[in-house]
Amino acid sequence: MPDPAAERTAVEAANAAFYTAFETGDLDAMRAVWVDAPDIVCIHPGAMPVRGAGPVHRSWALVMANTSYIQFFLTDVAVSLRADVATVTCTENVLTGDDRSSPDVFGGATALATQVFLRTPEGWRLWLRHAAPVLSGEDDDDG
Amino acid sequence: MPDPAAERTAVEAANAAFYTAFETGDLDAMRAVWVDAPDIVCIHPGAMPVRGAGPVHRSWALVMANTSYIQFFLTDVAVSLRADVATVTCTENVLTGDDRSSPDVFGGATALATQVFLRTPEGWRLWLRHAAPVLSGEDDDDG
Repeated sequence: MPDPAAERTAVEAANAAFYTAFETGDLDAMRAVWVDAPDIVCIHPGAMPVRGAGPVHRSWALVMANTSYIQFFLTDVAVSLRADVATVTCTENVLTGDDRSSPDVFGGATALATQVFLRTPEGWRLWLRHAAPVLSGEDDDDG
Repeated sequence: MPDPAAERTAVEAANAAFYTAFETGDLDAMRAVWVDAPDIVCIHPGAMPVRGAGPVHRSWALVMANTSYIQFFLTDVAVSLRADVATVTCTENVLTGDDRSSPDVFGGATALATQVFLRTPEGWRLWLRHAAPVLSGEDDDDG
C-alpha cells in the first residue's frame, strides 16, 4: 500500500466529492464518484437498496430533482483502510430547503452514512452507500 | 480470485454465521465472525457507530444480555464481490421475544443491513456492519 496517510486523504477526498456532487446537484459529477459496475449499491435513508449503475444514477436524478437545497455538515468522519478498499462512516447533519417555504426556513435532520470505496485505476470510487436516519444518539440495545 | 461461485457461497456462509451467533447469543462465535482489528465498525439500528474490537464485542454482550429471543428471516440477500472484499446487503425480518410478555407474543420489525467482509487467512471475516430500520419500502426521495 502507498503511504497510508496519503491514502486516507485520498479516500476522504473521494468522500467529499460525493457530498459536493449531491450539494451542487451535479449528476455528471455524481456519476464520476461511483464505480461503473452492475454491483454498486445505494441505500437512501429509510429506503430499500438500489443496485447497479443505471438504477443508482436514475435514483440520484430523482433525488436531485426533488431537492431544492441541501447542505451537509459532516461530523465523526472515520476511515477504515485496507489495500484496495476503504470504508468511511460519518454523521450527516443536513440542512435542506423547500421551494414551498421561505428560503430561510430549513429542515434539519441527522443521518448516519457508511460509504465503501474501491481503489480503481482512476482512484477511489464509491462501491456502496448506506445512509440511514439516526433515531437516538444513545440507543445501543438492538443488534 | 478463486471460483466466484464458491467465493460467493463462502461469503454467504460468513454472513449466516453472524446471524447464527446473534440468534444463539454465542459471544465467542460472534467474536470469531469479526476481523480482530481496531478499525472494525458496528452500527446497531438507529445508534451511532461502535468502533474497535473491544467496544464492538462489549456492545454485543450488552445486546445479547437484553435479548431474550431473536430470530432472523433474511430476504433480498445480495452479495457484491471483489478479490479481497465483499459486501452483503439483506433485509432482516426480525422476530423478538420479551421476558415480560407471553412467549408467544413477538414483536416484528424490519431492518436493512449492510455487512462488509474482508478475506483473511482464516476466511471471510466481518469488517463493518451497518443495520438500520426500514422506514418505507418505497421512500426514494432523500439521499
